[in-house]
Amino acid sequence: MFQRINKLQVDLPPPTRPDPNAAAALQELLGGKYGEMSTLGNYLFQSFNFRSKSKLKPFYSLVAAITAEELGHVELVSNGIAMLNNGPDSDIDEQDGGDISGAPFEAMKDIRSFASFASAGGGALPVNSNSMSWNVDMVTTTGNVIFDLLHNFHLECGARLHKLRVYETLSDPTGREVCGYLLVRGSVHAHSYALAIKNLTGVAIEQMLPVPNIPLGNIPECQKYLDEGSHRRLYTFSPADYTELAGIWGNGEMALPTDPPGELEVVPGMPSGGKIHDLTGMPSAFAPDYAPEEMLEIAAKLTKAM
Amino acid sequence: MFQRINKLQVDLPPPTRPDPNAAAALQELLGGKYGEMSTLGNYLFQSFNFRSKSKLKPFYSLVAAITAEELGHVELVSNGIAMLNNGPDSDIDEQDGGDISGAPFEAMKDIRSFASFASAGGGALPVNSNSMSWNVDMVTTTGNVIFDLLHNFHLECGARLHKLRVYETLSDPTGREVCGYLLVRGSVHAHSYALAIKNLTGVAIEQMLPVPNIPLGNIPECQKYLDEGSHRRLYTFSPADYTELAGIWGNGEMALPTDPPGELEVVPGMPSGGKIHDLTGMPSAFAPDYAPEEMLEIAAKLTKAM
Amino acid sequence: MFQRINKLQVDLPPPTRPDPNAAAALQELLGGKYGEMSTLGNYLFQSFNFRSKSKLKPFYSLVAAITAEELGHVELVSNGIAMLNNGPDSDIDEQDGGDISGAPFEAMKDIRSFASFASAGGGALPVNSNSMSWNVDMVTTTGNVIFDLLHNFHLECGARLHKLRVYETLSDPTGREVCGYLLVRGSVHAHSYALAIKNLTGVAIEQMLPVPNIPLGNIPECQKYLDEGSHRRLYTFSPADYTELAGIWGNGEMALPTDPPGELEVVPGMPSGGKIHDLTGMPSAFAPDYAPEEMLEIAAKLTKAM
Amino acid sequence: MFQRINKLQVDLPPPTRPDPNAAAALQELLGGKYGEMSTLGNYLFQSFNFRSKSKLKPFYSLVAAITAEELGHVELVSNGIAMLNNGPDSDIDEQDGGDISGAPFEAMKDIRSFASFASAGGGALPVNSNSMSWNVDMVTTTGNVIFDLLHNFHLECGARLHKLRVYETLSDPTGREVCGYLLVRGSVHAHSYALAIKNLTGVAIEQMLPVPNIPLGNIPECQKYLDEGSHRRLYTFSPADYTELAGIWGNGEMALPTDPPGELEVVPGMPSGGKIHDLTGMPSAFAPDYAPEEMLEIAAKLTKAM
Amino acid sequence: MFQRINKLQVDLPPPTRPDPNAAAALQELLGGKYGEMSTLGNYLFQSFNFRSKSKLKPFYSLVAAITAEELGHVELVSNGIAMLNNGPDSDIDEQDGGDISGAPFEAMKDIRSFASFASAGGGALPVNSNSMSWNVDMVTTTGNVIFDLLHNFHLECGARLHKLRVYETLSDPTGREVCGYLLVRGSVHAHSYALAIKNLTGVAIEQMLPVPNIPLGNIPECQKYLDEGSHRRLYTFSPADYTELAGIWGNGEMALPTDPPGELEVVPGMPSGGKIHDLTGMPSAFAPDYAPEEMLEIAAKLTKAM
Amino acid sequence: MFQRINKLQVDLPPPTRPDPNAAAALQELLGGKYGEMSTLGNYLFQSFNFRSKSKLKPFYSLVAAITAEELGHVELVSNGIAMLNNGPDSDIDEQDGGDISGAPFEAMKDIRSFASFASAGGGALPVNSNSMSWNVDMVTTTGNVIFDLLHNFHLECGARLHKLRVYETLSDPTGREVCGYLLVRGSVHAHSYALAIKNLTGVAIEQMLPVPNIPLGNIPECQKYLDEGSHRRLYTFSPADYTELAGIWGNGEMALPTDPPGELEVVPGMPSGGKIHDLTGMPSAFAPDYAPEEMLEIAAKLTKAM
Repeated sequence: MFQRINKLQVDLPPPTRPDPNAAAALQELLGGKYGEMSTLGNYLFQSFNFRSKSKLKPFYSLVAAITAEELGHVELVSNGIAMLNNGPDSDIDEQDGGDISGAPFEAMKDIRSFASFASAGGGALPVNSNSMSWNVDMVTTTGNVIFDLLHNFHLECGARLHKLRVYETLSDPTGREVCGYLLVRGSVHAHSYALAIKNLTGVAIEQMLPVPNIPLGNIPECQKYLDEGSHRRLYTFSPADYTELAGIWGNGEMALPTDPPGELEVVPGMPSGGKIHDLTGMPSAFAPDYAPEEMLEIAAKLTKAM
Repeated sequence: MFQRINKLQVDLPPPTRPDPNAAAALQELLGGKYGEMSTLGNYLFQSFNFRSKSKLKPFYSLVAAITAEELGHVELVSNGIAMLNNGPDSDIDEQDGGDISGAPFEAMKDIRSFASFASAGGGALPVNSNSMSWNVDMVTTTGNVIFDLLHNFHLECGARLHKLRVYETLSDPTGREVCGYLLVRGSVHAHSYALAIKNLTGVAIEQMLPVPNIPLGNIPECQKYLDEGSHRRLYTFSPADYTELAGIWGNGEMALPTDPPGELEVVPGMPSGGKIHDLTGMPSAFAPDYAPEEMLEIAAKLTKAM
Repeated sequence: MFQRINKLQVDLPPPTRPDPNAAAALQELLGGKYGEMSTLGNYLFQSFNFRSKSKLKPFYSLVAAITAEELGHVELVSNGIAMLNNGPDSDIDEQDGGDISGAPFEAMKDIRSFASFASAGGGALPVNSNSMSWNVDMVTTTGNVIFDLLHNFHLECGARLHKLRVYETLSDPTGREVCGYLLVRGSVHAHSYALAIKNLTGVAIEQMLPVPNIPLGNIPECQKYLDEGSHRRLYTFSPADYTELAGIWGNGEMALPTDPPGELEVVPGMPSGGKIHDLTGMPSAFAPDYAPEEMLEIAAKLTKAM
Repeated sequence: MFQRINKLQVDLPPPTRPDPNAAAALQELLGGKYGEMSTLGNYLFQSFNFRSKSKLKPFYSLVAAITAEELGHVELVSNGIAMLNNGPDSDIDEQDGGDISGAPFEAMKDIRSFASFASAGGGALPVNSNSMSWNVDMVTTTGNVIFDLLHNFHLECGARLHKLRVYETLSDPTGREVCGYLLVRGSVHAHSYALAIKNLTGVAIEQMLPVPNIPLGNIPECQKYLDEGSHRRLYTFSPADYTELAGIWGNGEMALPTDPPGELEVVPGMPSGGKIHDLTGMPSAFAPDYAPEEMLEIAAKLTKAM
Repeated sequence: MFQRINKLQVDLPPPTRPDPNAAAALQELLGGKYGEMSTLGNYLFQSFNFRSKSKLKPFYSLVAAITAEELGHVELVSNGIAMLNNGPDSDIDEQDGGDISGAPFEAMKDIRSFASFASAGGGALPVNSNSMSWNVDMVTTTGNVIFDLLHNFHLECGARLHKLRVYETLSDPTGREVCGYLLVRGSVHAHSYALAIKNLTGVAIEQMLPVPNIPLGNIPECQKYLDEGSHRRLYTFSPADYTELAGIWGNGEMALPTDPPGELEVVPGMPSGGKIHDLTGMPSAFAPDYAPEEMLEIAAKLTKAM
Repeated sequence: MFQRINKLQVDLPPPTRPDPNAAAALQELLGGKYGEMSTLGNYLFQSFNFRSKSKLKPFYSLVAAITAEELGHVELVSNGIAMLNNGPDSDIDEQDGGDISGAPFEAMKDIRSFASFASAGGGALPVNSNSMSWNVDMVTTTGNVIFDLLHNFHLECGARLHKLRVYETLSDPTGREVCGYLLVRGSVHAHSYALAIKNLTGVAIEQMLPVPNIPLGNIPECQKYLDEGSHRRLYTFSPADYTELAGIWGNGEMALPTDPPGELEVVPGMPSGGKIHDLTGMPSAFAPDYAPEEMLEIAAKLTKAM
């Protein structure tokens, strides 16, 4: 089972302006082959399909717990995409859609992902930066534990490469923060799968890291997460379960040599998290509605009636 | 953010025998257009992309909370699929893969979804009963609140129809229980979206229910859930958030006339849940490994070392 | 614009028994790369996109008119599929769905296209015999008239080959009649595109026909259509338009040497057609409804009220 | 069966300039999930697969007749797309392709849908605005009449939302007229499915309309269609069949309150329609040919020879 | 550039009987995510896209040379598939297609991949065992050398697992031999990518092998290839190029401990190979033709005329 | 079997500047329906699946040999794409990736195929110009020899049309040279399939050529290939096999009337070819690595050590 908390895993700065092509670029980290839907999808189904769960608890717990974190990553990137389409935060929504006969969204005609406006109203979708759908071909769940872990290790390294390249194309603070945070957390996941493999095979595969060979410290947006030791922490993302992953992430294992030093530690539960930004009402695009006043009133009444 | 709990939403009886074609049939309820991946995917992205969240809390909370329940449905169906491929519960795993030269899985050659054995080792995948991938075309997230709610209402009715038909093809207790439980819970979701629409438009659309027009009481596997009032309960699936959905599910609204009577109620948190069955180790299919003894020992050591 | 007539292009015999795998085989002729959705889709978009329509009327009219016939072929194959899933004609529908708790559709669990039952209730879908969707990759519409005609000529020959092979797998009269009729009409289309090419290039490409090199006369189900001269007739499928195709199909051109002799002729309008079979009500599968009595009464009242 | 008439359902104004990105935007209304291929595909297959057709004539006729209108919508949008790529009407085609060595179509290199030029020569294709193919996942045809009608109601509302958003991005008269006309006709379809549902369930679901909540009167391009009462008329699009839909669209039912008042009426047959624009010959792009003179002469001769 | 030699990489025994479902199973090793189309496609595009080729010759050469071997694997599996559909070798083709009116291929109606008969006449196609197409989502080519090598290492391990499972379902000698040979060669490729990674990172990742942990010696069909030392040989598959891969495969590196001992060696060129079996003429299925006599005569004449 | 030679089939001039949208346009000739992946895929699988190979040697050899040439075309277009993304040749790679925090690839944010940068680092992928994947729907391999040849003839004509249109959008010498060369070679293939058909059917289908009707001589980039007689030469692309195709390409057959005159001739083996350009190291995009110095040193050492 899963519980939901109405927070993002981290605070995101608001965008300085709407930038639909930047939002579309960020989609690569959501629905691309090496995006968060893929890390989520792989670990989710691997955890369902895991054989001998009770006898292989540290490994099962590792995959199961990271699944929950990845779902939060899907949420984070999705929020980043919607925010980049939305533009700066504002408390003042449009009052109503007004006169729409003057092609108010003509600028959308030339963006890369027209359908993200026409269909999703600027929201996130499970597609990559070229609008291709995420799909089953991005999921590997063989049930062979060593192979699935090896796959996951490779997946996290590939995800890191994609995050770096997307980061290099973005100038807006929102998208850059998403990349910075995910780089640190993805690094933790790559490291943890490496340690799991080392435990099972004796091969010190974590010594390959980081792949690509750029230290996290070179990314300014990673700095505060390194400072607070995020690269050394693995959360259980559970009220009480999955603590057995401490057999892998812990046991005296240390941070990667390219990162600030320190021992790896398991943190039960989850980070304190950051607020979910309100996306501005955009009645001229029929979101939440063309003439939303009544809707807002009803909502206010229902809230009070509780 | 999301937290994970190492339980299913409900207890499933073990299968009486492995039945790969039944498992493949159940895939329709996982990755089909009207399956649980679709309800999850729709509500997940709708909740991310929701505009004016803070001003439309009852509606946002409804979608956001049901998302978390749907993820548990994905888990439940996936477990059902893996269990149906696996067969009866057993504490005794195969010791090792033994001699594999005698075509030990020849029977798999003629099953409907060969790849589910060859690639997923009998696990669940985000595909439908004909092996087609779940994809973005199954997600609607326009940001227009009334339309998205209408879509969701239709989606839940369609999901109900598919559950009923899949149920009619299954004789094994595991798959039938999955269907029975999901029918009750899906009915709650259809009802809740109908009430949300009624609040916003004044149209008593819940009076159409149930679609299709078969009472839940006609399904023996639904009975115990009706008895305990599950059809009247909406969980927040959150430690503290989403309680505002009580503005919609509550307020004196009553159970559907075809179901046992009573008032609708919001339950903070989640159900007590059921156990996740261990899938038997199947070394002859390399899951978790061909010669897993060392792996099991390592896992045991790591567990103790914590 | 298009008008619809509530008839099939030809009478189909009812099936002797339900045969879902035969229905699935017939899907190849509907949604396969060389199926009727493809001939329809190609000619439909070619006719929309045709340049210099008014100056190239015979060629434009040929493509435009055959489009309308192909839509009727899509209808014919689809009816064949639904009939094969449905089984013999019957005036007596099920009264209601009754007790569905005994796995009444267990036999469906092992059919090749489970989703055709679970999702389409035994109806036709735009997919091929392996459940793959028809899609844009099956449409060629370049606007180069000679190339598009050459493509269409090849498409009709490919369609003929697929019809022959599907025919060879079917023992039921419904599917065989569909194949027999389509073989004759497809032969007309291949012949007509060949004549169009000959007019434009001087190459007597119709002399290649038939491809594959089996005479229509070898197929018993084609015989009556040959007897009535269907292989020499091209319909305009229009109340008044597209008569200019007589510049291509006509002009003294004769039937293919392997077919009964005679001159080619254009027939304004359409064939007299055959009846659309009623698909039996199947309340146990919720089609049209679980307890349809009220629905039937309402329909009866509305019909009278007109 | 279907007949074709060489007219559009309505007159379209010619574009003022070629605008490939506007054409690509309009593709959303052709091949998108909520585009005309989808309304066509859903009603087409639902009408084929309809059970107890003869006993449920008003409902069957409604779906069957609207199918034929939707095919004309597919034609209308497709013509709009090809026209927007083509630019202003002109009687004077290029004489021949001339010297193509100077990159005459360099401007195409940067358009959003390059393949629409390279492959379709500026024609329409069954894809959405992001070049994704239309496919079976956009078709729902369960055979459960109430559910299918509910699906169709939701589909028309979703289509309306997409038409509105596409309209808001277009400044050219051709695309705007397409949207304006389709908005009025789509409104009729949504209304008619609502009435069908009301007849079967007693729920006055048409009172939700319009979704989104913008009156048609706010769209200048809708005005003339409202003036002539198009919003109150449902055509049978058939020479003689489907008149039974008057049991649903009629019976004293009135126009929606946000539209000009008046009684709903069934019109046998079809509207008078508008002319199909000639797409200019573009020999430099090999459409209809690089040196088309001979082709035009042959066509002229064949036309005379008839 | 590539040259073709009219041989398979190894001799295959003929099948004992036609077995379309076994052929469909083998498709997993052709068009599946971990099949030979994928290894080919990954290395092909990686070799095209490789940066600093001349400065990274050993690594470039490794990927480039294995590409050529993989193409031969695609050929080998494809031949195996076609042979399994075809059945035992025979010099005597059908004379002609004869009377096809008696449903001569009725048995095909119930096979898993109907389209492989209807469309491909029993030939191989780039799809997996569930008929899903191979596609770009199965290609990783980032240009980051360490990551691409890691991906390839994981890909070969995954391919090995799939070969083992397919092998376990096959009783026919043809399919088993395909698996046996590919297991040995795939093991070489996994080993070689591991050594490349070790050279670049210092991590002895080859010590993880074999994944899954079953020795090749346990597969009887691998034995003769082990005996002849195939597991220690890497071919350049080139008349003169790619010898630089000896910097990786060689240098005193030894066979894996679970395989027969010995030093790794690079073999310029390619293996001596085995014959390509003639697929029996099947005129009743129109392959090569319904009445092929004339075709065979023409071919004989053209051969003499050379 | 296949051998690889480390050359392109022809020398390509380096680009004058990076042009990602031109590279994306060229993708149409790689992964589009009428691109080189399609000619390759069709002939590859047709050659595998060919029945009665030994009795139909001239036809089998024709398809088998052209397959090998097409693979070289795939290589050529892929190199062209990577070169156009890369820009002018340079011996001097970036030393290392340096400071990447300043959005060094911001310009990529607005290119048409963002994923080609983010995922493939500017390399080629098996997709079309709209980023859609190449797939099995682009492969026809029925086993009916006349039909498959007719398909191939149409395919080559379609490929020619696409090459012409892509050529018309490109101003850079690299892409234009790719088009010029492929136009000449594609013309040879269309011609050869026409002759094969003529041999089998007696229809002089080669008299339709060229389709589209523009002489190769109108394309300046084709001139040098015409001068050297490339349009009259068919290579066996084999050390010793496939010479039987001389029964079709030869026998006194002459060049097409629109091309420079002369007899057709078979050339055993392959052309002398051109060099493969080094793609510049781009450490700032992590290709081959962020800090590649050590990698280059290791490669240098391994090369020496051989």
